[in-house]
Amino acid sequence: MSFRIEHDTMGEVQVPADKYWGAQTERSRNNFKIGPEASMPKEIIHAFGYLKKAAALANAELGVLTTDKAQLIANACDEVIAGKLDAEFPLVIWQTGSGTQSNMNANEVIANRAHVLNGGNLADDKKVLHPNDDVNKSQSSNDTYPTAMHIAAYKQAVEITIPGLEKLRNTLAKKAAGWNDIVKTGRTHFMDATPLTLGQEFSGYVQQIDNGIRAIKNALVMISELALGGTAVGTGLNTPAGYDVLVAKKIAELTGLGFVTAPNKFEALAAHDAMVELSGAYKRVAVSLMKVANDIRMLSSGPRSGIGEIIIPDNEPGSSIMPGKVNPTQPEAMTMVCAQVMGNDVTVGIGGSNGHFELNVFKPVIAANVLQSGRLIGDACVSFNDKCAEGIEPNKPMIKQHMENSLMLVTALNPHVGYENAAKIAKKAHKENKTLREAAVELGLLTDEQFTAWVKPEDMVGSLK
Amino acid sequence: MSFRIEHDTMGEVQVPADKYWGAQTERSRNNFKIGPEASMPKEIIHAFGYLKKAAALANAELGVLTTDKAQLIANACDEVIAGKLDAEFPLVIWQTGSGTQSNMNANEVIANRAHVLNGGNLADDKKVLHPNDDVNKSQSSNDTYPTAMHIAAYKQAVEITIPGLEKLRNTLAKKAAGWNDIVKTGRTHFMDATPLTLGQEFSGYVQQIDNGIRAIKNALVMISELALGGTAVGTGLNTPAGYDVLVAKKIAELTGLGFVTAPNKFEALAAHDAMVELSGAYKRVAVSLMKVANDIRMLSSGPRSGIGEIIIPDNEPGSSIMPGKVNPTQPEAMTMVCAQVMGNDVTVGIGGSNGHFELNVFKPVIAANVLQSGRLIGDACVSFNDKCAEGIEPNKPMIKQHMENSLMLVTALNPHVGYENAAKIAKKAHKENKTLREAAVELGLLTDEQFTAWVKPEDMVGSLK
Amino acid sequence: MSFRIEHDTMGEVQVPADKYWGAQTERSRNNFKIGPEASMPKEIIHAFGYLKKAAALANAELGVLTTDKAQLIANACDEVIAGKLDAEFPLVIWQTGSGTQSNMNANEVIANRAHVLNGGNLADDKKVLHPNDDVNKSQSSNDTYPTAMHIAAYKQAVEITIPGLEKLRNTLAKKAAGWNDIVKTGRTHFMDATPLTLGQEFSGYVQQIDNGIRAIKNALVMISELALGGTAVGTGLNTPAGYDVLVAKKIAELTGLGFVTAPNKFEALAAHDAMVELSGAYKRVAVSLMKVANDIRMLSSGPRSGIGEIIIPDNEPGSSIMPGKVNPTQPEAMTMVCAQVMGNDVTVGIGGSNGHFELNVFKPVIAANVLQSGRLIGDACVSFNDKCAEGIEPNKPMIKQHMENSLMLVTALNPHVGYENAAKIAKKAHKENKTLREAAVELGLLTDEQFTAWVKPEDMVGSLK
Amino acid sequence: MSFRIEHDTMGEVQVPADKYWGAQTERSRNNFKIGPEASMPKEIIHAFGYLKKAAALANAELGVLTTDKAQLIANACDEVIAGKLDAEFPLVIWQTGSGTQSNMNANEVIANRAHVLNGGNLADDKKVLHPNDDVNKSQSSNDTYPTAMHIAAYKQAVEITIPGLEKLRNTLAKKAAGWNDIVKTGRTHFMDATPLTLGQEFSGYVQQIDNGIRAIKNALVMISELALGGTAVGTGLNTPAGYDVLVAKKIAELTGLGFVTAPNKFEALAAHDAMVELSGAYKRVAVSLMKVANDIRMLSSGPRSGIGEIIIPDNEPGSSIMPGKVNPTQPEAMTMVCAQVMGNDVTVGIGGSNGHFELNVFKPVIAANVLQSGRLIGDACVSFNDKCAEGIEPNKPMIKQHMENSLMLVTALNPHVGYENAAKIAKKAHKENKTLREAAVELGLLTDEQFTAWVKPEDMVGSLK
Repeated sequence: MSFRIEHDTMGEVQVPADKYWGAQTERSRNNFKIGPEASMPKEIIHAFGYLKKAAALANAELGVLTTDKAQLIANACDEVIAGKLDAEFPLVIWQTGSGTQSNMNANEVIANRAHVLNGGNLADDKKVLHPNDDVNKSQSSNDTYPTAMHIAAYKQAVEITIPGLEKLRNTLAKKAAGWNDIVKTGRTHFMDATPLTLGQEFSGYVQQIDNGIRAIKNALVMISELALGGTAVGTGLNTPAGYDVLVAKKIAELTGLGFVTAPNKFEALAAHDAMVELSGAYKRVAVSLMKVANDIRMLSSGPRSGIGEIIIPDNEPGSSIMPGKVNPTQPEAMTMVCAQVMGNDVTVGIGGSNGHFELNVFKPVIAANVLQSGRLIGDACVSFNDKCAEGIEPNKPMIKQHMENSLMLVTALNPHVGYENAAKIAKKAHKENKTLREAAVELGLLTDEQFTAWVKPEDMVGSLK
Repeated sequence: MSFRIEHDTMGEVQVPADKYWGAQTERSRNNFKIGPEASMPKEIIHAFGYLKKAAALANAELGVLTTDKAQLIANACDEVIAGKLDAEFPLVIWQTGSGTQSNMNANEVIANRAHVLNGGNLADDKKVLHPNDDVNKSQSSNDTYPTAMHIAAYKQAVEITIPGLEKLRNTLAKKAAGWNDIVKTGRTHFMDATPLTLGQEFSGYVQQIDNGIRAIKNALVMISELALGGTAVGTGLNTPAGYDVLVAKKIAELTGLGFVTAPNKFEALAAHDAMVELSGAYKRVAVSLMKVANDIRMLSSGPRSGIGEIIIPDNEPGSSIMPGKVNPTQPEAMTMVCAQVMGNDVTVGIGGSNGHFELNVFKPVIAANVLQSGRLIGDACVSFNDKCAEGIEPNKPMIKQHMENSLMLVTALNPHVGYENAAKIAKKAHKENKTLREAAVELGLLTDEQFTAWVKPEDMVGSLK
Repeated sequence: MSFRIEHDTMGEVQVPADKYWGAQTERSRNNFKIGPEASMPKEIIHAFGYLKKAAALANAELGVLTTDKAQLIANACDEVIAGKLDAEFPLVIWQTGSGTQSNMNANEVIANRAHVLNGGNLADDKKVLHPNDDVNKSQSSNDTYPTAMHIAAYKQAVEITIPGLEKLRNTLAKKAAGWNDIVKTGRTHFMDATPLTLGQEFSGYVQQIDNGIRAIKNALVMISELALGGTAVGTGLNTPAGYDVLVAKKIAELTGLGFVTAPNKFEALAAHDAMVELSGAYKRVAVSLMKVANDIRMLSSGPRSGIGEIIIPDNEPGSSIMPGKVNPTQPEAMTMVCAQVMGNDVTVGIGGSNGHFELNVFKPVIAANVLQSGRLIGDACVSFNDKCAEGIEPNKPMIKQHMENSLMLVTALNPHVGYENAAKIAKKAHKENKTLREAAVELGLLTDEQFTAWVKPEDMVGSLK
Repeated sequence: MSFRIEHDTMGEVQVPADKYWGAQTERSRNNFKIGPEASMPKEIIHAFGYLKKAAALANAELGVLTTDKAQLIANACDEVIAGKLDAEFPLVIWQTGSGTQSNMNANEVIANRAHVLNGGNLADDKKVLHPNDDVNKSQSSNDTYPTAMHIAAYKQAVEITIPGLEKLRNTLAKKAAGWNDIVKTGRTHFMDATPLTLGQEFSGYVQQIDNGIRAIKNALVMISELALGGTAVGTGLNTPAGYDVLVAKKIAELTGLGFVTAPNKFEALAAHDAMVELSGAYKRVAVSLMKVANDIRMLSSGPRSGIGEIIIPDNEPGSSIMPGKVNPTQPEAMTMVCAQVMGNDVTVGIGGSNGHFELNVFKPVIAANVLQSGRLIGDACVSFNDKCAEGIEPNKPMIKQHMENSLMLVTALNPHVGYENAAKIAKKAHKENKTLREAAVELGLLTDEQFTAWVKPEDMVGSLK
């Protein structure tokens, strides 16, 4: 491999000749060989594109950067945003906790790429832009990295996570609406209970997801606040007047999302509670989806020795040894995702709780975990929706059989014979393996006609009278 | 000990003669000897008082219970609410996951206490009220227990948790406002950084708590929704028309809090995502408070070999062996509380994710953990406020010394000499143990007068110009 | 209430006249009103009894304390150990993170109680023992509190946690042994799979618990190491030569447990990794028990619309609204305990990770959580064993029906007709709702006689041939 | 892209023409578009190479597979082991929870690659090996995937995790040994305490890591047990006699690691407690490393306004805005890794607790998290060692200054003047900003000569006399 010499304030560094990154990126690449390379999330890289462009435009507008330089920066940033320079970002999550070298990676790549776009050569000693004095102007890693975190997290939430949840939610709502006349046995404590409709059962899932989306949106209000303009410790040192408000406005324009400047920059650098909150919202959603996916796999269990009240699509052979087996693989992927999101939330909380003085230095691990959670939820919902939820069908014969067998239909008799007599009926039926009707009449607690009149499963599910 | 005989649908049970509880409570007491007795949170017991009273009143208003019976129930409930019958609730958290026996404990105690209040005797074979048919009318454990959870959690949040947070927040805000002219060195990565004011530093803590309160309030919107009216599986079986809305209104009136009936009772029984969300908000607050408390103990470290920029009150001898030692004990209690709340959040998430079909049966463990978190946060904030925060004083000589020594004042030179030259100055000063001024002038990068004009710590903290 | 005046190095304090505690305890009681009072675990209090007695005896043997004083201390300690002075320990978990005031609480109560046992009066100005100079001799809170943690945790593990696990394990093993001829359908992914015996299924649970006990015992090796002798920072300042080894020996003698002095006292004060490890072992056990309890409740589900292959004891009416309902309440209590233990483990990990320099100051929260986990596991196992596991019976007709229906018996044909042909048979049977035999013969892949010879469920479960 | 047609029991599938995978892999690839592609850990893929080869050799030895076929399989497996076929494993973690399609991916790739190595063509309709009947012979996904988990986890632990820990441990031990005469102030509660040596302080870190390695090794005993031979549900259906023992022996030979067959295959399929235990050991190590890394960054804080007792290597410019700043970046990477490992442990616990009946279907998420933790710990230790620990130097002037200033040297006077008098001295010195010597003499509690004789920091650190 051939190299060129780059330098920073610590001296010279050999950098691969064809790479756009510079000395500091190379130092970090060599100093942090932890886990797979280039693990810093791409969402963060692209977010740096937006913020460096916005900063350049704001700097120019406020008169601290020439328009020419700002335009050069903006052009290079457009390529970062488009993902064209992804290969120029080799750094890992497990670097300095401020993400300083990833900020410098962006500064260096943008400076060098701009130089080349401007007709220069990577090997030139003198470049048209300085990574610190120009590209990083009015910025510090301490306010850019958290800004990139927020841009990345917000974009992902509205482009991937929430749409995935809504897609699944809408399918479940459609199913619920279509199944409102299918009366089935309820189950509480895994035991037979009073009836409800399959539509009602699924309506609970819809409500869970609706509430989860609401929680994410609440968290996004905090995520919309940007640290940019705080620079090193939150005071905004070396920024022109009005910069923080303006640069947030630029980012909002470039992304089309409702970003604003954070009201308190000290908080925005030293704490990442907003990310903790978003992670918590994702965890809440994971808790919900775990329940929904578990229900669906248990309802579809069998085919002959389980509950079997719904039929889910067969997507792949389920076993390498048991021929013809079909498994609830989409619910399994979903519940694994939920376990991951729940653990990620602990990582984020630990990282968030360990900020000290003017800076939290668990930024990359917080970002990586929140972004993994948001992505996994979104993707898993789409997968679960497309390959499972949409194809769910009720197994009406099994539903009917279970419902008619259920001893808990006896609950309808409480207002007529009292809880204790009703219990006697249920217990006799259970013990003697009889129907409730037989037991009730034998006990002389009511007549056959009364039973017919009072125990009507379809009347026991009525949405609250 | 003397006993009386009580019975339920499974038969007779010996119950301590002087206790108000009945057969089912006694069964659970004997069946679940797990951990300390009577661990079911008192907040839950009291909440049952509100809901049983509200249910009785609603039942009477809707014509399914006599006004006399309703009044008897209400009278006994008033004693439950007032905590007068706490000793009659011996059950533990670690019982059935629906809290059924705690619901029955309430039904039995209220029925028996009402009987006695009505002039009857505990030993009477026939009582004026039936625990199931009267006290539990239009109810199931499956909708009462989650309702009690929400009542207890909401009340605690607004009476203990949020007021505690606000108290601490206000003290910190007062401190921040008073210290806006105390310029000090910033610290990032635990290393000296550019200056800010002590007031700015503390303003970040205020913002953190403000945001945390906001998150709790967002979660309370979900907590305000009550499951009551769903009965066994969410369908509202055996409830009169309009009951769910009315009973929530009654609870709102009795508590003075904004409760409403849950829009989807299936969700409200089968999932406790609202509690998961509230726990998540508490965890977010714990993450914030961990940061604040850590900062305060590190800022007060020393007295001679630490950072020592603030002085906190001496509340007790700090060591049993080191005479005269004083320790930051309130921050320690606070951070231990935060660790507990963060772990509780995991318990709540696991419990919340394991609901199945029509019921989540991790209700008591969810309730106990959320209520412990809410209580600990509220109490710890008051303790921390009263015994520490209010008494914090700046150690001005130490602050001044640290600030003037900081090499990071060099950052003010970036716009004048560029990042790389500024770095040369800082490095030279560090290496040769000189002042920045000396190093700058020796390097010939600026004059003594320029240094005086450009490096003014008090100009480096200005809220964004 | 009447008071007496006590003093410490900070001055005078009013203490309730009839209480044995002194000035420092009273300060802490007033300074930390967080959560319920007296929450410091009783196991810790009793452990202080052992260690204060052992220290007194070692001090006397090494000539730094008179025999008379040592005997006075020992006598008072015996009462602490026996729990007679529990009411004299009013402090909470949420105090200083070193547990200093709980150590002083022990010192003060022992000094005062010894004075009274010696014929003195609590109100005497001069006491026969000084809490610091005598009772705390050769000790610091920094080495006593972690020693008390280890004594308490070890004792609990061998007296409560492990015996509880063993009791349940033995019952499950007995069941497994008795059910080795009951062939049933296996289930993987909740779906019907190849057969195994009910005994085999339960043997897996036994193995899980055996492995868990092994993990606890591994952790106890670390717990057996005591910090005592390290005093303030691990150097053993103010202890006589040989003290650390001797005092550990004394504690081992007094408790009958294998304690030794820690090889490195700096680690023993500054980190509580041993407690983190024990908590991790408890979490591992919780993970196992969650699985076992879930299986048992799902296997017993129904009674008519579930899996219903085992019958568990009816211990209490299961529902306040559904008459005759019986629920798997012991598994529910167990799984709630497991959720608690899993969350506690996170708290312990966070506490453990936050030690700084020479001391970890999350000691009380670590102790409280580990001790709660150990107690809950032990108690829950006994409860689950006595009220559920011992009474489990197979539901043979249901087992037989499920087993015979299972399409996965087809797997026995793989070696004869190949995986793909076997799959054809299973799919045809499923689709056309036929038996495997019918489908196999209709497809012409084998004869009726061959099916009889090859598909024998009882031959499909043989422990590896 | 050009395709070929592959088929499985569900029908035909288009597969990229040049890829070795078959129908089932392609189905899974299309059905699970969740997160980045090919996320299934490479360690698992390579482990499949070992186990498929071992199974083939065992099958041949036991006479159920021809030697020719076994050799063909072995040859292809050698390429899998060597990583030459990594690009043929496109599946993600978030698939079926049994890892069935990753097992089939291995079966298909090995079958097809063997066919090509044997002179065949990928497009051939008939292949020399059948993925199920030959490559998967005597196996099920249910026993192969957990076996691959154990192989991968064991290998990684002994090749990466433990060596990384040992490397760091040895450096710290070397430092500790070299610094045994550097007396410094201790710090407890972040406050000045009695002295110890810098070597003693670092010796605690060494002990922590030693104990952590011990915990990992304990867990590896469980990991050494392999599920292989249990096939579908643990009964060993369709395996020849003696197969389970033999195949474990083959794996042990191929890997050079001490694998044995699991004593209970039902446990080995249905639970992954061994992985939970290993994850717990990694979490324990993370807790330790968090402490060590935090200490090191705080000890190096400054350079002028912190503690500054050690100097760590400057590896990169620390700030994009503050010139000349150097940060403790290796400790930061380490603590971020620790946060990740602690969260991963929660994910693993949740996954582990959710096994049902004969199978745990959270296998891939468990594997991925344990393997990430093991890798990150190992890598981070090497990075931390090479770029930080090895270069740590004491800052003797600062150490001396802090030590001599410490008021806690007064503790040496306890045996001479008593705790209360010693406290008076310390308090006077603190209040009047004097030396201890001055305060002691002024109070008339001892003479100047006595002070000199009794307060000798170098005598206060002696390893227990």
